[in-house]
Amino acid sequence: MRVRATVAYDGTDYSGFQRQTNAPTVQAALESALAQVTQEEVSVLAAGRTDAGVHAAGQTIAFDTVWRHGLDDLRRALNAVLPVDIVVVEVEQAAESFHPRYDARSRWYRYSLYNATVRCPMNRRYKLHVAVPLDIASMQRAAESLLGEHDFATFGRPPLGWKRSSVTVRRVIKAECSGTPPWLTFDIEANAFLYRMVRSIIGTLLQVGRGRMSVEKFVSALEACDRSLAGPTAPPHGLCLMEVKY
Amino acid sequence: MRVRATVAYDGTDYSGFQRQTNAPTVQAALESALAQVTQEEVSVLAAGRTDAGVHAAGQTIAFDTVWRHGLDDLRRALNAVLPVDIVVVEVEQAAESFHPRYDARSRWYRYSLYNATVRCPMNRRYKLHVAVPLDIASMQRAAESLLGEHDFATFGRPPLGWKRSSVTVRRVIKAECSGTPPWLTFDIEANAFLYRMVRSIIGTLLQVGRGRMSVEKFVSALEACDRSLAGPTAPPHGLCLMEVKY
Repeated sequence: MRVRATVAYDGTDYSGFQRQTNAPTVQAALESALAQVTQEEVSVLAAGRTDAGVHAAGQTIAFDTVWRHGLDDLRRALNAVLPVDIVVVEVEQAAESFHPRYDARSRWYRYSLYNATVRCPMNRRYKLHVAVPLDIASMQRAAESLLGEHDFATFGRPPLGWKRSSVTVRRVIKAECSGTPPWLTFDIEANAFLYRMVRSIIGTLLQVGRGRMSVEKFVSALEACDRSLAGPTAPPHGLCLMEVKY
Repeated sequence: MRVRATVAYDGTDYSGFQRQTNAPTVQAALESALAQVTQEEVSVLAAGRTDAGVHAAGQTIAFDTVWRHGLDDLRRALNAVLPVDIVVVEVEQAAESFHPRYDARSRWYRYSLYNATVRCPMNRRYKLHVAVPLDIASMQRAAESLLGEHDFATFGRPPLGWKRSSVTVRRVIKAECSGTPPWLTFDIEANAFLYRMVRSIIGTLLQVGRGRMSVEKFVSALEACDRSLAGPTAPPHGLCLMEVKY
């Protein structure tokens, strides 16, 4: 049967989701736990290949297994052998054709900031420390320009071998800066994302928040479809894949 | 001059606050940063010697230095050389006689729980995972019995060489279980604490929360001044020294 599972992980100590030779990945850890528990060789499909250092609260995966016990037992058995920084939150039976990536309607990512003069040791793994005050209202105005269908070529590259115009169009459903210092978050939901798109957007929004780029310049950068107009890509540790919707 | 500083740290990777031979400690890291920045040999006094794995949001320390620049510069210089899991939040000049331990009026500790069936990777360093539902109302009733002046011998040992009765009396100012699952906290403030007292109290309160000990039994355990009546000492990683009051 095909099983669909929601997985959460602290990405700090992994070279991203996708399996690699000679580097620890979340996929390898999941497949190794599945092999141990099911005594089968199991391949894992995922909704999104998060980068090195990016976290997930609600990554969705799928795999095939002949597991004959209850699905709660499967979750418990997996969590007993998985490393402490990865956990299976939920498991359920899925249609044989279910594919976590192709069937996803949208993905919700959250980028978290710790905005205070002095850094905070307890937040260092999950939030980007920004020492200077930020103009949240301007960041929010800039973020609103992302809503709807746009060519996001400014904020990310197309997959290799594809022509840009056809594949860099995405539909953003939510784009919201919220919170009060020191706790600020940027939530973005879209049908799909380009490579490093969220980190490029937040890096550019931070230029707006610091007063280094006007809202108008942000909007014209988006419209220009020019990668060189984006701000520096924000580091991975503030980013978390919150939920994949089907 | 004598400098008073507020320090925060993630205690996960330290063998406690107090300097030891051949083990990483918060005190050693602070003294090494001070030596590097001030070019003096500096000894650090602290309000409380937190155990291995215990965190601090507001540990208070004091040290003497001939530093001739601004105190903000001292803070910035220290934070530039300190490891990422330790930070100096605030520095100010103190009276020459100021002693962070002897002058403290009270200490506030918080013990944090992550109360949900499935563990959470992002909270594993700072919150104790409790998988079973807890009876918070009973925990709170038991906690209220701690308020005021009591002999806390049930929940901690006196320093070596002291007679028990004289030194295990402490005055608890606040004792509060709050929050809603999965986020629960136990806050306790007292004039001072015995060795491992907070972790012993929360360990025993958890017995009440799990229905393994009645509120009445908790109260009579407190009154009995008998260490053997306490529940198992809770692990260090849920504990944080929040603030020292003067």
